[in-house]
Amino acid sequence: MEIERKYLVRDLPDNLDSYPHVEIEQAYLCTSPTLRIRRMGDRYILTVKQNLRVPGTTAIHNREEEFPLAPESYARLRAKCDGMPVAKTRYRIPYNGLVIELDIFHGPHAPLILAEVEFPSTEAANAFLPPDWFGEDVSTDPHYRNSYLAQL
Amino acid sequence: MEIERKYLVRDLPDNLDSYPHVEIEQAYLCTSPTLRIRRMGDRYILTVKQNLRVPGTTAIHNREEEFPLAPESYARLRAKCDGMPVAKTRYRIPYNGLVIELDIFHGPHAPLILAEVEFPSTEAANAFLPPDWFGEDVSTDPHYRNSYLAQL
Repeated sequence: MEIERKYLVRDLPDNLDSYPHVEIEQAYLCTSPTLRIRRMGDRYILTVKQNLRVPGTTAIHNREEEFPLAPESYARLRAKCDGMPVAKTRYRIPYNGLVIELDIFHGPHAPLILAEVEFPSTEAANAFLPPDWFGEDVSTDPHYRNSYLAQL
Repeated sequence: MEIERKYLVRDLPDNLDSYPHVEIEQAYLCTSPTLRIRRMGDRYILTVKQNLRVPGTTAIHNREEEFPLAPESYARLRAKCDGMPVAKTRYRIPYNGLVIELDIFHGPHAPLILAEVEFPSTEAANAFLPPDWFGEDVSTDPHYRNSYLAQL
């Protein structure tokens, strides 16, 4: 299970390029459930996400299953995807024993910037205190789903 | 993990219609990994299968993950599938504490008939003694994969 929160970003942290980062391209075959293909550096991944409604929290809860994808399969599936691919640079920033994934979007989705944090439990997601450079919590706003952005 | 063997069928068992059966239509978006959509009666299912090579057995070993699929998603994904859908009637026949899934194919794949048996362990798959109405074990023959049949 994937448990996460998603935030707008007010200010970028200093020395961003000192953190590990990777170029991501992803596109969607389906949104119910989410069926995503992703190229992440030289890795190709098929992901299926099934949104689970968990009472008592605004954090995102997904059953998430990942499968390695052959590069030829990626190319063939990419041609079948809806909308346009989403391209972004993802930075991984350590924060209080967690990892902030900071996504800087490119192309038609620039200058959008989103930060995601994954948690080991619903309790940890509920107790999370974001750093002061985070903006609004948009976990429950469907307009910031990458699968929605791909349809714009 | 799905562990199974697949057989050709020499003779159909008696009283076939006394066993539970369902109409299945399925089609494929990808074969590496296998990305299948299936309509099974009034249920719609997305399945991803990743073939695992397990030494010391000819039984099929797959990581298999299933997700419920909205009927509208089924219709949209069906239009993106490669080849043609596979249609079959599946009978579930109890056999020595296991279940034989007997698939009678329709349309362009008739008169093909295949039997599959799923096992709780590799040892059970290796020790399996098929009933005398089964024919050749085609577990390792890619020509009898449903994803291959969909490309014919």
